[in-house]
Amino acid sequence: MIVLFTDFGADDIYVAQVKAVLAQQVPPGTPVHDLLHGVPNFDARAGAHLLAALQPSFPAGAVFLSVIDPGVGGPRDPVVLEADGKAYVGPDNGLLSVVAARARKARTWRIVWRPTPQSASFHGGDLFAPVAAWIAAGSLAKGKLEETPGLNVQFKADDLAEVIYIDHYGNVLTGLRAVNVSHSAKIEVGGQRLAYARVFAEAPAGSAFWYENSVGLVEIAVSGGSAAQMMGLRIGDAIGLV
Amino acid sequence: MIVLFTDFGADDIYVAQVKAVLAQQVPPGTPVHDLLHGVPNFDARAGAHLLAALQPSFPAGAVFLSVIDPGVGGPRDPVVLEADGKAYVGPDNGLLSVVAARARKARTWRIVWRPTPQSASFHGGDLFAPVAAWIAAGSLAKGKLEETPGLNVQFKADDLAEVIYIDHYGNVLTGLRAVNVSHSAKIEVGGQRLAYARVFAEAPAGSAFWYENSVGLVEIAVSGGSAAQMMGLRIGDAIGLV
Amino acid sequence: MIVLFTDFGADDIYVAQVKAVLAQQVPPGTPVHDLLHGVPNFDARAGAHLLAALQPSFPAGAVFLSVIDPGVGGPRDPVVLEADGKAYVGPDNGLLSVVAARARKARTWRIVWRPTPQSASFHGGDLFAPVAAWIAAGSLAKGKLEETPGLNVQFKADDLAEVIYIDHYGNVLTGLRAVNVSHSAKIEVGGQRLAYARVFAEAPAGSAFWYENSVGLVEIAVSGGSAAQMMGLRIGDAIGLV
Repeated sequence: MIVLFTDFGADDIYVAQVKAVLAQQVPPGTPVHDLLHGVPNFDARAGAHLLAALQPSFPAGAVFLSVIDPGVGGPRDPVVLEADGKAYVGPDNGLLSVVAARARKARTWRIVWRPTPQSASFHGGDLFAPVAAWIAAGSLAKGKLEETPGLNVQFKADDLAEVIYIDHYGNVLTGLRAVNVSHSAKIEVGGQRLAYARVFAEAPAGSAFWYENSVGLVEIAVSGGSAAQMMGLRIGDAIGLV
Repeated sequence: MIVLFTDFGADDIYVAQVKAVLAQQVPPGTPVHDLLHGVPNFDARAGAHLLAALQPSFPAGAVFLSVIDPGVGGPRDPVVLEADGKAYVGPDNGLLSVVAARARKARTWRIVWRPTPQSASFHGGDLFAPVAAWIAAGSLAKGKLEETPGLNVQFKADDLAEVIYIDHYGNVLTGLRAVNVSHSAKIEVGGQRLAYARVFAEAPAGSAFWYENSVGLVEIAVSGGSAAQMMGLRIGDAIGLV
Repeated sequence: MIVLFTDFGADDIYVAQVKAVLAQQVPPGTPVHDLLHGVPNFDARAGAHLLAALQPSFPAGAVFLSVIDPGVGGPRDPVVLEADGKAYVGPDNGLLSVVAARARKARTWRIVWRPTPQSASFHGGDLFAPVAAWIAAGSLAKGKLEETPGLNVQFKADDLAEVIYIDHYGNVLTGLRAVNVSHSAKIEVGGQRLAYARVFAEAPAGSAFWYENSVGLVEIAVSGGSAAQMMGLRIGDAIGLV
């Protein structure tokens, strides 16, 4: 199973190029899942925390093709991370580092193989996709990877007290894991203090609250409305805990 | 065949979670179709009329995972509807009731099974998805459902004289079935009276008209333009027939 | 393999209708790829140049269901193009003509078969989709097509010095093939002259440049920003070469 996690935009021209490559490299019938193509553009840090929160839905053996790669064509390394039975293929710019830091067991490799010819600007298609396909197919040839002691860019395992994603309802996801936050705590954001509610149906209509979302993160929401719009929140805004 | 019909947003993080659950429950190769993830947010009424119009494209045996569920975590029941050889799994908030009311033959069940642990806020993933998967796989164990005389919330079979969907061209779908509207009738909306045209190619360029769209609904359009923008129309706006 | 290339919108109600038809006509397991559903609305000319740039990612034998069809229901012919081992099914409004003109070997047919009943407004679903499915399945019956000497509407093989697509990052794709443009050339657009950069990582932060994108087109970009927004560019804007 290959799982795609990118900022390529779900409706744009890039995902199809990646899938065309995968289709030619994996055994027919290998499932390819679109996890998210709407990671905030160029934002490896938000992406790192989202990936850590979203990966548990997928079973052991999953290969995550993870590409938020504003430095493509520059000096950053292409890498493979193996963490708790799942593989992650992507740039060494921090994107994979929160998963790595939270894993019970992790190993990392630099990808030393290079495609011929190689595009300057789209390693998602011509470098990362073939490597992910080979790993998923169990056909990765020796010598294409070189083990390294760890990732070069590391954001660490800590929660991130920032807005990391805004969904299409206008719900605001933070990098705080709800398991680390007491239900009696207030979330301070945009000059307001928000109390906890278990579900939308129990929150007062039209006013903001926080709750534990389905992937375990602290999320800010407004019942029947857009929290992001009402509170003017954006990716990267700081979150306080009181 | 499983068919997804939700307000989860096609490009957001929720569809992948649902598909990850399905992938682990259905036989490999079971097709999963994205019918629509852009049902107007929280709008079970618009969704009910859209679902009734869109379901005929799918063959008997299809299982519709149908989730517009603003009351998740509250008292509304999770239900299964069987209508004319197709199954529908979702909340009992009216969403399935137009399909039910228009069916020649319909049966309904309450879902009494509960997942362990159950999320408070995302039954799409942990409650409705497994039930849909089991129905599609023919492996639904006895005792997980309890037959009921009918749905609790019923919007009835009548057409809905309102805007129920606006597509990405800006075409405006109404809840009126074209089979019930004479070609000589005028549609009154936003202070204008619109005449019928058979196709875009026969409508005067730049002016609004109504026609029977590909799923049998009365649709308001502007050739080469956005009817929604030109006429300032929004979900829920009333439609008149003259 | 069937490849979808349309202006239907990836998140709208039309792609699912097409896929429902395909699913009932092709052998189970036939891959269906979403190449792009975000071709600029109604714009066969932009579509023609995009299709020519994007089709090389797909292998011989691919069948492109290509529908940008504002004249549906009018006099334009439905056609099939065979070009260099790939098939293209769509309207004869120029959309397929750039691929045809650039092919080493091309043949064209008019589709004379008509579905019963036929919708007036959505040949994507009821006319083009079955024909594409039959070609992909190798089951197209004799007499459904009639060979013609060529397409009626032809945009020719020349590059198009215009904006043909804007991606979700705000990068601006032109109809100029980079292989025809010297790296020392400047791109003139919106009153500015832009120099070449190999990759984003080598461009000055915050200022616009042009580069060869992953499908071989001249693309205008801003590192870490939206070129379309910064320069106020839109589909159809003219591009100069200095």
